[in-house]
Amino acid sequence: MLECLVNGEISTVVSASNRGLGYGDGLFETLVVHNGMPRRWQAHMDRLGVGCERLGIAMPPQALLLREVQTVSTALVDAVVKIVLTRGGSARGYRPSQDAGCIRIVSAHVFPLDIDENTARGVKARICDLRLAIQPALGGIKHLNRLEQVVASTEFFAEGVSEGILLDQEDHVISAVSANIFLVLDDRLLTPRLDRCGVRGVLRSQLLAAFSTRCEQRRIQVDLLQEADEVFICNAVRGIVPVTAIDSQRYEIGPFTRKLQHWLQSGASV
Amino acid sequence: MLECLVNGEISTVVSASNRGLGYGDGLFETLVVHNGMPRRWQAHMDRLGVGCERLGIAMPPQALLLREVQTVSTALVDAVVKIVLTRGGSARGYRPSQDAGCIRIVSAHVFPLDIDENTARGVKARICDLRLAIQPALGGIKHLNRLEQVVASTEFFAEGVSEGILLDQEDHVISAVSANIFLVLDDRLLTPRLDRCGVRGVLRSQLLAAFSTRCEQRRIQVDLLQEADEVFICNAVRGIVPVTAIDSQRYEIGPFTRKLQHWLQSGASV
Repeated sequence: MLECLVNGEISTVVSASNRGLGYGDGLFETLVVHNGMPRRWQAHMDRLGVGCERLGIAMPPQALLLREVQTVSTALVDAVVKIVLTRGGSARGYRPSQDAGCIRIVSAHVFPLDIDENTARGVKARICDLRLAIQPALGGIKHLNRLEQVVASTEFFAEGVSEGILLDQEDHVISAVSANIFLVLDDRLLTPRLDRCGVRGVLRSQLLAAFSTRCEQRRIQVDLLQEADEVFICNAVRGIVPVTAIDSQRYEIGPFTRKLQHWLQSGASV
Repeated sequence: MLECLVNGEISTVVSASNRGLGYGDGLFETLVVHNGMPRRWQAHMDRLGVGCERLGIAMPPQALLLREVQTVSTALVDAVVKIVLTRGGSARGYRPSQDAGCIRIVSAHVFPLDIDENTARGVKARICDLRLAIQPALGGIKHLNRLEQVVASTEFFAEGVSEGILLDQEDHVISAVSANIFLVLDDRLLTPRLDRCGVRGVLRSQLLAAFSTRCEQRRIQVDLLQEADEVFICNAVRGIVPVTAIDSQRYEIGPFTRKLQHWLQSGASV
């Protein structure tokens, strides 16, 4: 963490009674900021708004968050900025107080170095043993209850494997550990429905909107991975990353994935 | 929060990059402390140890935790003390660093005032709309991912209803929002299995051990609530609390519940 604002004040600490710490009672966003301009700002704000609505947390004004994102990243050409919103109020117990407001934690981080290489060469993945729980009340939003991802992320330390693919309890493909997943099949894009678990990524949403006629959200049984012509994962920071293997199944980095990468690099990402 | 120690130092704040805040990557215990003596200490430590083992978090020495519990509660005859352990390490990203250690947050809180009244008169409950997700990897341990309980706790603001009963996605009874549940049926105790969700409470464990020949852990379909002779909920702070209604179903406060309350008050709770 390079710079951090807590409720607009320079600080690297939060209250020990913060409800994000106590219960994971909050949401987060992870943004790319280039020369002070956050990418996909409105998409991030829209998702944060949906999360706040779902959890009954008061969403701060977007202009305030934007100013804080720019403040923490001002010294950096390229930065990753994390916004954490937690519900305010500090009394012990699950039940939130009414009108508790929220706490804003906005921090800047170094931009990862391995992105270009992964974008070019792709990554190998394995299917995690952990199965995501099915919870429609929390599905799709980027909340702070991420123990499943933490546990899953410890499963793929093996040589050369840098990604884990997550299935739900019914063996549907849901996502990578910290990215969404797309399959290319017969020149069409398939991506899992995320109404019961997973996070609706902002780049995923952008792809769905831009390629709506060639893209389908559906339940994807794990067996379908074997029939895919191409597989890629994507998130707001890493862009579109080809998957070259999932366990023993190999994939070519195909023309559809390369076309989407080109589309993204040619300006669609702003 | 009255007094608080973070890693043994007097403090009311934690790092904004704490993994408990970021991901709920940690565990907690809520203890009753009377005149400096924590009740059911070993049971709390045993559960914390199981949770640490499951999540791969380094458990601090029990003697260190005991000293910190006693330090924060030293000015109080009766206190509730909360121990939060989060995984150490602060780099952004789900994957924990190896040998990250852990952060200890030990805080004292006022003892609730409504316990005796609830113990005597019982409480009314409703069945929450939210259904707990089924996640065997996290079932039973008292981890920090508690958004389900937060959401469920907003569901029973209605007049006179002070408890929510939680079912899982398959409509099995699991627990109250912050307590375990027991049914008395034909002079036997039934309590839900908590291998797929819920928290194995220390008082629940104590009851199971003390009344093993008359007690059964099993899957309990919601319909069975209608056949119960008595229902009570329990946790380490509140003891054994009779349930007098679940939605439109009424219950007498029966002899089995009173007998267990008496057993508890006569010294079994130390």
